[in-house]
Amino acid sequence: MAETDTLNQMLATAMAAAIAAGETTSEQLVRACLERIEAREPVVKAWAHLDRNLALAEARAADAAVAGGAALGPLHGVPVGLKDIIDTADLPTECGSAHFRGRRPANDATVVSLLRRAGAVILGKTITTEFALNGQRGTTNPHDPARTPGGSSSGSAAAVADHMVPLALGSQTGGSMLRPASYCGVYGYKPSYGRISRKGVFVISRPLDHLGVYANSLDDLALIADVLMVYDAADFDMRGHCGARLSQAVAEQPEPAALKLAFVKGPPWAEAESYLAPVMAHYLDGLGEQVHDVELAGIFDRAVDAHGTVMDVSLWHNLASYYLDYHDQLMAETSERIEAGRQITAGAYMEAAELAGSLNHAVDQLLGHYDAMITASATGEAPLGLASTGNAIFQRMWTLIGVPTLSLPLMTGPNGMPIGVQLIGRRGGDADLFRVAKRLLAI
Amino acid sequence: MAETDTLNQMLATAMAAAIAAGETTSEQLVRACLERIEAREPVVKAWAHLDRNLALAEARAADAAVAGGAALGPLHGVPVGLKDIIDTADLPTECGSAHFRGRRPANDATVVSLLRRAGAVILGKTITTEFALNGQRGTTNPHDPARTPGGSSSGSAAAVADHMVPLALGSQTGGSMLRPASYCGVYGYKPSYGRISRKGVFVISRPLDHLGVYANSLDDLALIADVLMVYDAADFDMRGHCGARLSQAVAEQPEPAALKLAFVKGPPWAEAESYLAPVMAHYLDGLGEQVHDVELAGIFDRAVDAHGTVMDVSLWHNLASYYLDYHDQLMAETSERIEAGRQITAGAYMEAAELAGSLNHAVDQLLGHYDAMITASATGEAPLGLASTGNAIFQRMWTLIGVPTLSLPLMTGPNGMPIGVQLIGRRGGDADLFRVAKRLLAI
Repeated sequence: MAETDTLNQMLATAMAAAIAAGETTSEQLVRACLERIEAREPVVKAWAHLDRNLALAEARAADAAVAGGAALGPLHGVPVGLKDIIDTADLPTECGSAHFRGRRPANDATVVSLLRRAGAVILGKTITTEFALNGQRGTTNPHDPARTPGGSSSGSAAAVADHMVPLALGSQTGGSMLRPASYCGVYGYKPSYGRISRKGVFVISRPLDHLGVYANSLDDLALIADVLMVYDAADFDMRGHCGARLSQAVAEQPEPAALKLAFVKGPPWAEAESYLAPVMAHYLDGLGEQVHDVELAGIFDRAVDAHGTVMDVSLWHNLASYYLDYHDQLMAETSERIEAGRQITAGAYMEAAELAGSLNHAVDQLLGHYDAMITASATGEAPLGLASTGNAIFQRMWTLIGVPTLSLPLMTGPNGMPIGVQLIGRRGGDADLFRVAKRLLAI
Repeated sequence: MAETDTLNQMLATAMAAAIAAGETTSEQLVRACLERIEAREPVVKAWAHLDRNLALAEARAADAAVAGGAALGPLHGVPVGLKDIIDTADLPTECGSAHFRGRRPANDATVVSLLRRAGAVILGKTITTEFALNGQRGTTNPHDPARTPGGSSSGSAAAVADHMVPLALGSQTGGSMLRPASYCGVYGYKPSYGRISRKGVFVISRPLDHLGVYANSLDDLALIADVLMVYDAADFDMRGHCGARLSQAVAEQPEPAALKLAFVKGPPWAEAESYLAPVMAHYLDGLGEQVHDVELAGIFDRAVDAHGTVMDVSLWHNLASYYLDYHDQLMAETSERIEAGRQITAGAYMEAAELAGSLNHAVDQLLGHYDAMITASATGEAPLGLASTGNAIFQRMWTLIGVPTLSLPLMTGPNGMPIGVQLIGRRGGDADLFRVAKRLLAI
């Protein structure tokens, strides 16, 4: 076990292969992750709940299965972190809120069951902002502890970036998956709407809530997402076939034809940092003729407001009871967010929901001409300070319309902090989006 | 032209075949329809706008194309009626309202273009209630002029039932397609949501509005629906492949296995006439072991209210300007309907929209076990009197969730009036629903 001090840096695909080949054990890997956490947690503060003994017991059980010649799932023995809005029967789930202090769900969320069935070891629960909204809980950016890791999936992104765990689950209702991926320099993936079950996950907004995954490579994202994208009758917004065979998509020999990518700045770029345009231009230069500037105007100009309307109505609809009955247990910014939707009219909500349909249609039309849209994953580097988790505006439109998005850590800002390249596909076109990402990474 | 007096009774499929074979002409058929209208219109009052010369000119042009050996579309020379909420560039479109008196749209609706491209002759515009809502315009039931034909697609259903025209288009936002089909004893079909373009059709509710078709046989429904179910980028709620190859589905040799049908009474049966249960039981007896009683409870109990919420919000959202600015031009019942949605909260609308998603899911689950659901198309026979167009409650849930429905004129009430058998499928399962209907008709 001499190499324990670097085992935690292995990719998840490599870990799974090494465990299956008997080259390492799950216990060695989990110990390496726990040691990394012990060393770095005082600075990073990524974990809400850890139970070392429980994780090690799961790892040893996984190793016993290997020794016994059992059939192994795709994540056999691989440690995974879970955002603390995802129910676990054997660890607390507090949703980042004092209101839920000590809460122990009776059952695992569907995604937790799927992970266990695939052989994963649940390493622990990662810190989330309160109710996955704005009130942050002190997690820092592993690249610079003076900066935010982003939110609301703060702990999941930071833990993967800091190699405390190779894989973690997060969620996105506004910009909570891809913004932390961008700030922390990890790979992030928010699938098409309705592809990962939300049964057993704290509900913020049924039409907006998505689960997603963090990893340190595209192959690792595909590995875990394939395990999670399974139809679950208990999530009423899932339909029929959810799987996208992403691992197969990234393993294919790429098409020889050139890519055709639409570089979209769209309305949110007004809020970008001044250095973002040259940083992005520098990256896009490397893609040459494969990138075409496309202006998103017209109905796209109303997209962010429409997201805000659906979000605000959802917050009042789903969280009003916490606000009304337990106001004193909530952070001030959480109460403000919940209150915002109280006065919105049904007509305004209907207009926003209809706009989402129109935008989806417009994206379908546009992506009849391009392989994917490409833009930045955030308005700039992770900002200094922990009071705010940063600006979600580069995600909100895509969350509203439920299209798949990927963040690839391919750019660097003026302070040496990572900035993600965001790829956007059409709803249901997740495998194609991974194919595009694979090709970008090969360039 | 000696047989002109019965030509109007031919089925559309037979008309198209006879025209293509040179056995009859479109002009003969159109003249037969116009003669029937002349004889019966004073009683039935099905037509809002007719232009005999225009229809005959179209028919003669169709005949010239046959004579010239042109390639013929599937509806070549066949007359079709259009509910007067569907825009036509060469006939007025008044939406049943004094407010739109004399309105002449500049362009054809997409469905009108599709019909013309398929060779159809637009015979005229049929009477609709005001704004396709409640305020009826005097159309009577061809089987008994003392009874309503139903609404809002009153004229289209009555005209097809009276053999004034073999095919007609209607629309359904509540129960406006299948209830008139049931009352008038014709075949009616409301496809899955998003399968027929609504561009150029009066908007009542974007999430609820469906176009549909009337005919005197299942094959005829398939013939015209296949022409109409074509993707149109101008209707933002259409996606990808809309066609269902219904004519092919009904032409196939049926599967030998027995059907498995779920007889659903569900919450609305509380409003059924007392004779409906025995009438339905008598029909279902003929299907023997193929029918299973299934109770729709739980969330289904809230479906009709949820439809009402979405409908009311839609009416205020889309029609408030008519109500506010042209109140004196509207019928009293129209104003009342529009006013109803004014006070509904966004949370209530969101809950209704979410319930629609859950119901769709529940139907998917149920129809994993059955070929289709079966029930009545209306609460009973067409009621006496013209003040009301009857009760839409047997459609409203299915309209809300956008599943395909068919009405087959296979039952008769105690006064000898027709009652439809309603078949309900899963969203996108239109071809399978036609296969089931074909088999019921063969029994």
